[in-house]
Amino acid sequence: MADIVTAAMIIIGDEILSGRTKDRNIGHLADIMTAIGIDLKEVRIVPDEEDEIVAAVNALRARYTYVFTTGGIGPTHDDITADSVSKAFGVPCEYDAQAYAMMEASYAARGMEFTEARKRMARMPRGASHIVNPVSLAPGFRIGNVHVMAGVPSIFQAMLDNVVPTLKTGAKLLSVTVHCPVGEGTIGGPLAEIQKRHPDTIIGSYPQYLDGKFSTELVVRARSPQALEAARAEVAAMVEGLAPTP
Amino acid sequence: MADIVTAAMIIIGDEILSGRTKDRNIGHLADIMTAIGIDLKEVRIVPDEEDEIVAAVNALRARYTYVFTTGGIGPTHDDITADSVSKAFGVPCEYDAQAYAMMEASYAARGMEFTEARKRMARMPRGASHIVNPVSLAPGFRIGNVHVMAGVPSIFQAMLDNVVPTLKTGAKLLSVTVHCPVGEGTIGGPLAEIQKRHPDTIIGSYPQYLDGKFSTELVVRARSPQALEAARAEVAAMVEGLAPTP
Repeated sequence: MADIVTAAMIIIGDEILSGRTKDRNIGHLADIMTAIGIDLKEVRIVPDEEDEIVAAVNALRARYTYVFTTGGIGPTHDDITADSVSKAFGVPCEYDAQAYAMMEASYAARGMEFTEARKRMARMPRGASHIVNPVSLAPGFRIGNVHVMAGVPSIFQAMLDNVVPTLKTGAKLLSVTVHCPVGEGTIGGPLAEIQKRHPDTIIGSYPQYLDGKFSTELVVRARSPQALEAARAEVAAMVEGLAPTP
Repeated sequence: MADIVTAAMIIIGDEILSGRTKDRNIGHLADIMTAIGIDLKEVRIVPDEEDEIVAAVNALRARYTYVFTTGGIGPTHDDITADSVSKAFGVPCEYDAQAYAMMEASYAARGMEFTEARKRMARMPRGASHIVNPVSLAPGFRIGNVHVMAGVPSIFQAMLDNVVPTLKTGAKLLSVTVHCPVGEGTIGGPLAEIQKRHPDTIIGSYPQYLDGKFSTELVVRARSPQALEAARAEVAAMVEGLAPTP
């Protein structure tokens, strides 16, 4: 039996504390940690203040196997996570050559200016390694046992999918997506029933509202391919059985 | 201008950290604090472990004007918030005579046994005062600057409504409820538009799923009666304009 592996989460952002943005990352991280056998032991939400971030990072990285942060790695002045984590580790925060070159090339290819604001997103603590961001390119990073990720849920989730295989006891988590053409209100009940029948899977529901119409991406995650397929088949059958929407 | 009033929140519960239950209280407290001019500065989620709860309560009650806790005040063995908060304040945790009598009478009136488990819910730190629970009777409590409330969102919200008028700079928050016979999926879009048009209100949406049918309670909160009525009227008009559900 492996040792107990523990984790803590730090959510960085005034917008969560003011209520303007509602957190959707705690539940996702909790589900994933549970699925791969890591005990999430504590979560803290802190404001965009360097002292607070440094204190939380240093308190939690000393106590737990892993720390995961979300938020504060965007291009604006109040995105101070990279500086704060650098300070917590006592290393300089500087442009990462690889991230800088990658982003410069990407903006050039799209005919967009690589502004000072965008360049901020290439900064990280000296010695950090990248966490790949397949959604919007600008990478997260890992330094020591601290993993620094985006606050936007879709980017956070994509980054976390890249982190999970690197973790101790990080059993590989498989996932498959079923597109559903209606909103959560219609499918919430049957989906909860499917989740109940498949306790060894994590079924996520990601609603979208575009052009006046709801749709939902249903993501099934599991460690076993058999469990994954059994739940996916039920989700797909439920979606196929929906009455056409007007 | 009043002094700055600050607050922290402590969410107590393994079920949030495991992902089994998704928190819905952070966003609500954040909204309410913002509306009444209190700065929510930190949130911590801690497990059902006495040392962790005591440490969080003592760290945060010393730093902030108010501390609000949710969770761990139910009837089961893992509900240890009352004991832990008592320990943090260095006072005994004991049956509150008034809470005990009120609950005893209520269970008797319903022909239900006042079990040892239920009696646990009448325990609180010596010297605490009640926070009325209009939903399920068993009160929360306040001791010093710490307010201890339920984790179930509807009970938490009802308790918080009773706490708000007692807070410094606690501007009175008015609220009105509009019943909506369909689920959130249908009304999410238009409701968001109404919220946008009424930034000085907080519009909450509380879905229910009963007997295979979704419905939603829409609660409008505002400090000004005029703002409240303007938003309420739009919400009511939206609900009245819905096509009948099959």
